[in-house]
Amino acid sequence: MIEIIFLGTGSAMPAANRNLSGTALRRNGEIFLFDCGEGTQMQFRRAGLRPGRLRCIFISHFHGDHLFGLPGMLTSLQMAGLRHGLHLFGPTGLRDYIEFHQKLCSFKLEFDLEIHEIDEAAAIPLWQTPEYHVECRPLQHRIFTVGYAVVEAPRPGKFHDERANLLGVPYGPERGKLQQGESVRLAGGRVVHPHEVLGPPRPGIKIAYCLDTSPCPGQEQLAHHADALIADATFPSAEKNWALQTGHSTPADAAQIAKKCDVQKLFLTHFSGTLQEEELPAHRDEARAIFTNSIVATDLARYMIYPKSDAHNEQS
Amino acid sequence: MIEIIFLGTGSAMPAANRNLSGTALRRNGEIFLFDCGEGTQMQFRRAGLRPGRLRCIFISHFHGDHLFGLPGMLTSLQMAGLRHGLHLFGPTGLRDYIEFHQKLCSFKLEFDLEIHEIDEAAAIPLWQTPEYHVECRPLQHRIFTVGYAVVEAPRPGKFHDERANLLGVPYGPERGKLQQGESVRLAGGRVVHPHEVLGPPRPGIKIAYCLDTSPCPGQEQLAHHADALIADATFPSAEKNWALQTGHSTPADAAQIAKKCDVQKLFLTHFSGTLQEEELPAHRDEARAIFTNSIVATDLARYMIYPKSDAHNEQS
Repeated sequence: MIEIIFLGTGSAMPAANRNLSGTALRRNGEIFLFDCGEGTQMQFRRAGLRPGRLRCIFISHFHGDHLFGLPGMLTSLQMAGLRHGLHLFGPTGLRDYIEFHQKLCSFKLEFDLEIHEIDEAAAIPLWQTPEYHVECRPLQHRIFTVGYAVVEAPRPGKFHDERANLLGVPYGPERGKLQQGESVRLAGGRVVHPHEVLGPPRPGIKIAYCLDTSPCPGQEQLAHHADALIADATFPSAEKNWALQTGHSTPADAAQIAKKCDVQKLFLTHFSGTLQEEELPAHRDEARAIFTNSIVATDLARYMIYPKSDAHNEQS
Repeated sequence: MIEIIFLGTGSAMPAANRNLSGTALRRNGEIFLFDCGEGTQMQFRRAGLRPGRLRCIFISHFHGDHLFGLPGMLTSLQMAGLRHGLHLFGPTGLRDYIEFHQKLCSFKLEFDLEIHEIDEAAAIPLWQTPEYHVECRPLQHRIFTVGYAVVEAPRPGKFHDERANLLGVPYGPERGKLQQGESVRLAGGRVVHPHEVLGPPRPGIKIAYCLDTSPCPGQEQLAHHADALIADATFPSAEKNWALQTGHSTPADAAQIAKKCDVQKLFLTHFSGTLQEEELPAHRDEARAIFTNSIVATDLARYMIYPKSDAHNEQS
């Protein structure tokens, strides 16, 4: 299970009820933060998130509404006593940005900050652990921008009790070992292999984060079969040309990607400050006309994303 | 009359109810902003202040809690359509800071931003208009830090009706001219000079802003005869040594300066995150034991500062 926590769903300038870009994912006790606009550390605190759980920060691009909260986040992590390592990902130039601030403001980080700079030739996957990996792809914006996807490793297949019963596997540690992928020798000498009692491996959860961008191949690659796509929906379709000119998307753009890429849930975010709150239902409906499972994100809203059901896996 | 609006009264890390450093002064339709910690632009908006009124920003030093809101404030002023010139004051290095961000984040400012860098040899006064001037002095902190004082030009003396009556000055434009400092010729040929009907010039309002600092001569110079002193009171006296080591003050330190310098009102601010809200009355009382007119600032609190009464002027 991965929890999505929207910290800031506005764009460009903070609005009374929408902070600048910041989205947290919480997975197995770790937090990943995507973008860090001004005020993100305050929203992080308001959401009750624990700084000590932060493991990675991913910056999409160097527009201020995605970046200007980063120096304050780092100094606050230092003051909060963060001791484990933190991984920071973003376009090339990120190291200069951090070092410039450290020098000007005389701040030292006592935790290990590992900066991973990304350019057009960034490795895929960008980051890998036994439990998940993170991919990145270039998006289409006014300056170099990368989208990200967190992809869990496949989970073991479903355990079929009735097959195990037929094979005479007793209830107990033997079944646990089979579920973990180990073969077991039964009391009578027969060896049972995992494939005899398990279904096919089930895909883990995939969550894609794609802002700021106009529709582009990179977004499609990241969104492919995602359980959740967090997407730029800055302007309504009435302003489609302006969205294209400025490297942004409309709800319809995002919904078309979600449909084409067989996404489970679409979260619209990064709303223009010119959008009034009362216009957001229409914004949502514009997406829903194309992709039913579309949600308008609001600051501090939280969503649980569960693995696809087996039934779904068989469809996909 | 000058209004003080506290935008952020915390220090180091934002707290739930205390933003990082930022204090606005509003005078005759113009706003001066002192320091710009992360989140200041949001507080500025919450306080209902109009970006178009902002005329000068003064940065005290380059610790993040006083600085990291500045790039966002400038980009938001640009997006809000600011067109008149803005003056930005702060230690040398400020121009590099702005230019670094403009380059990395590709933002252009269409308004005229005039950057005034301050070093140990900064001019006194730093900035002058016919209505007021601004002074600065080095303070005592861990890095180069400057305090500021806004000093209004003296107002014309009090108009003495009874003297004007004795001299036969009619009610009407003659009295207005005399009040503005012009001599007038009466119908009978007699010339009346301003000094014949006006009291001595009355001092304008003086407001001093001194953080972050330990007690020092610069703070005393700025606070001298101030109508309001906005002062560092980061730690309680129980942590006096730590305050000194870190270049901060206690409420007692601030109150001693206020008393010695014949200040009218003392505003304590920049409270440590380790101070609990329930400890603030004791913080205030520590100052009041030395200087009665001491106030603990809270975020978004506003105070009107009026010119000293003539009675006071005669005392001082």
